[in-house]
Amino acid sequence: MTDSVSPPATPSRPEARSPRGFADRRGRDVAAERRIVEKVAAVYERWGFEPLETPAFEYADALGKFLPDADRPNEGVFALQDDDDQWMALRYDHTAPLARFAAQNWETLPKPYRRYAYGPVWRNEKPGPGRFREFWQCDADTVGSDRPEADAEIVAMAVEGLEAAGLPAGSAVVKINNRKLLDGLLAQSGVNDAAQKLVVMRAIDKLDRLGEAGVRDLLGKGRLDDSGAFTPGAELAGPAIGAIMAFLSAGGGSRDETLDRLSAVVGGSEAGAAGLEELARIDAALKALGVPQDQARFDPAVVRGLEYYTGPVYEAELLAPGSVSLGSIGGGGRYDDLIARFTGETVPATGFSFGVSRLAYALNAAKLIEGAQTASARGPVVVIAFSPDDMAHYLAAAGELRRAGIPAEVYLGKAGMKAQMKYADRRAAPAAVILGGDEIAAGQVTIKDLDAGRALAAGIADNEAWKAERPGQVAVARDALVATVRGIIEASSSFRRTSA
Amino acid sequence: MTDSVSPPATPSRPEARSPRGFADRRGRDVAAERRIVEKVAAVYERWGFEPLETPAFEYADALGKFLPDADRPNEGVFALQDDDDQWMALRYDHTAPLARFAAQNWETLPKPYRRYAYGPVWRNEKPGPGRFREFWQCDADTVGSDRPEADAEIVAMAVEGLEAAGLPAGSAVVKINNRKLLDGLLAQSGVNDAAQKLVVMRAIDKLDRLGEAGVRDLLGKGRLDDSGAFTPGAELAGPAIGAIMAFLSAGGGSRDETLDRLSAVVGGSEAGAAGLEELARIDAALKALGVPQDQARFDPAVVRGLEYYTGPVYEAELLAPGSVSLGSIGGGGRYDDLIARFTGETVPATGFSFGVSRLAYALNAAKLIEGAQTASARGPVVVIAFSPDDMAHYLAAAGELRRAGIPAEVYLGKAGMKAQMKYADRRAAPAAVILGGDEIAAGQVTIKDLDAGRALAAGIADNEAWKAERPGQVAVARDALVATVRGIIEASSSFRRTSA
Repeated sequence: MTDSVSPPATPSRPEARSPRGFADRRGRDVAAERRIVEKVAAVYERWGFEPLETPAFEYADALGKFLPDADRPNEGVFALQDDDDQWMALRYDHTAPLARFAAQNWETLPKPYRRYAYGPVWRNEKPGPGRFREFWQCDADTVGSDRPEADAEIVAMAVEGLEAAGLPAGSAVVKINNRKLLDGLLAQSGVNDAAQKLVVMRAIDKLDRLGEAGVRDLLGKGRLDDSGAFTPGAELAGPAIGAIMAFLSAGGGSRDETLDRLSAVVGGSEAGAAGLEELARIDAALKALGVPQDQARFDPAVVRGLEYYTGPVYEAELLAPGSVSLGSIGGGGRYDDLIARFTGETVPATGFSFGVSRLAYALNAAKLIEGAQTASARGPVVVIAFSPDDMAHYLAAAGELRRAGIPAEVYLGKAGMKAQMKYADRRAAPAAVILGGDEIAAGQVTIKDLDAGRALAAGIADNEAWKAERPGQVAVARDALVATVRGIIEASSSFRRTSA
Repeated sequence: MTDSVSPPATPSRPEARSPRGFADRRGRDVAAERRIVEKVAAVYERWGFEPLETPAFEYADALGKFLPDADRPNEGVFALQDDDDQWMALRYDHTAPLARFAAQNWETLPKPYRRYAYGPVWRNEKPGPGRFREFWQCDADTVGSDRPEADAEIVAMAVEGLEAAGLPAGSAVVKINNRKLLDGLLAQSGVNDAAQKLVVMRAIDKLDRLGEAGVRDLLGKGRLDDSGAFTPGAELAGPAIGAIMAFLSAGGGSRDETLDRLSAVVGGSEAGAAGLEELARIDAALKALGVPQDQARFDPAVVRGLEYYTGPVYEAELLAPGSVSLGSIGGGGRYDDLIARFTGETVPATGFSFGVSRLAYALNAAKLIEGAQTASARGPVVVIAFSPDDMAHYLAAAGELRRAGIPAEVYLGKAGMKAQMKYADRRAAPAAVILGGDEIAAGQVTIKDLDAGRALAAGIADNEAWKAERPGQVAVARDALVATVRGIIEASSSFRRTSA
């Protein structure tokens, strides 16, 4: 580190641990997240979105002050001063850097500009269980189109992305709302103050947790919770509260049905009518794109936290059987003012962001990860090492397997045969290759079928016929190595498929 | 940002720019780097290495003080203090976090532990042309094996990785050295001081740039360069300088030949003999693994900057015709003391790191990127938009193409037909789909072959037969959309292949 940083003197032996709120991810978990990102990125590319990678750091003024919001005062960014005293901060999402990039390159970009991005984002928040300060997001945004069809595209891609990631239809839904509806509703009730609107949105956001009575309290005088703590309310009058509660209960059913009910509640105001018209065009576009009614719904209770959204907002939720929400796995919306921060000219933009780790967690919990037993989760074939003098034989055997496309390694530690077999088992190796002195002299190789061993140990294959077919260990001619190992791997795969 | 950070008040309109030394990467460049990482990661997995992702931040004391070295006093890390006053810093490579992870989890890891990692690393250095403060590395390391075969594996994987990334045999080489050779040589000359050794290594590292005479000066009294600046030397005596120059000239030819020459120069010392024995075993393993002599060579002039290497070191170099080095594209070595920093117990480890951006630059310069004309570089089919009323027709057409696996998008801006065709051309679209009112009424679709247009414009397809075969624009029945577009894309691909 540079002298100017002046950390305390390094103790002679530092403790091996990660900073609070940061986690290591290994093997299977890494593979699961990568697979999600690859599948979703492939969807984005099929829709004509090009990849963009912006740096981890932005100047702090370019990131803006969208974090923290008043609900979470500890929320913030990781910031530091550069050599020239300018403040830089790590990105907290992929949208703010896109706004900076689009403003910087607006003249030369093809317009509308469609881009996708994935990678880590950082938030300087209080860490907690399942709450990390570094996590991955995977975004797609269209910059330079104010058409509701651009919003519909984003929603349709989110639906397709959820399926591509491995969530079957019915296990997730994208909910759509439009901030203009609430704006119109509040304008009709005479509420135009931004701070008061924010209190209203926060109250609505708590509908799931507090129920209708709790939200009513927060829209009015305020709410006293069970612990005796008082949360001040939005101080709305009775009729305004009634209108909002009617608005919130307009969700449910098909998009057509929701639109009809919303129309009755908010159609009278200018902003409300504009919002309804946008939703109607989004609905028409979703129909043209073949997006089923139950995978993209209208829901007036969707709020989304970030203040920069200006119209449609989207929220992807994981569903338990019976359409019970298990929480958000992504979201987004239209933000027509974010690029104007730099250029002074409004540039319409709309986008969506998947929470990759949340999606991976959801898939894992649902045991839906396709191919979880293949490649990355499955270990390499392990070639047992007996004598340093025979190392060339072991290395050549592993090389042959790899050239045949079979992951393989030579054991290079110091342990004996028994510990090496244990190592192979822990690596989830499908087979161990044994080239002892006798085998080498006889031009043979012994291959241990570790999957068979595991199946026997688990008692899932204890009938005699199966045992005869997969004896656990065979000695074959040295040049039959690859074919024999391949046979074991293929038999295991088909066994898994039929018994899973 | 948090209040404790206290950045200056945000001006009303920030400038849209990235911090110095940080760059955006778009479309084709992103695709090229991703492809390298995927191909190299696939090699690592085939060798039994499992993925590990550590956080961007480590505690500063865990990263250690390997950067800066005395040569580059501005070199350092990006560090900041956490809420609890502890110093955290962004990783400057993937090795230091691995050492922390291995020390933290040593009891429960399968041993030896083979892992690979890729992602950005950050260095708080003075930026310059082609010198960034954020760049990607792609590493593989074996922790827990002191066997030279583990080193040989790392080298063999590097060779295989270079080929997998797209560099043909002969365009790159992995050079191998062993620090024990120089240690032995210096011990024979009575040099045991670590600081003096460092000066010697820096002098050797300048062989390419300064030639033999310059290195001789730096090994002795020092060197006066053309600008009149004086660099103090290592103050070695004449015989020691002579021995080192003989050592440096022992490279070249096959590994066997180099080993023979090195043996004559450094075989007498204990450390030298140990180093030679390790290189001989690495050579034997490389032979068993089938690594050709010209793709992995021994070269006593290889130094590698990081101080933590304890034995074999590796450097991958890009080669121009005639084996002229075009610079380093990766490197690594054995570091047996890095984990002991935490645990107090020596854990042998060896690894290699590709510089992903450098590799991409090399491949790009050499125009070797396989498939550069496919998927990511090639734009989507663009469906032209005439009237908002017909949007459903456009969206449905794009959806059909995508379901057939053909990237496609609807133009969602406000421009007229001509500007939309220009947009499609800038996106490198293979075709534009035209659904005007007449076409829709007639149940037809017009498809413009933009590749044909580009070929004609470039004058590479100006014969009449070709024009007749690819007329540039056809009207077909609406249900022939997908087949017609696919035909255009396939014809373009085969045209490219035959004319490239």
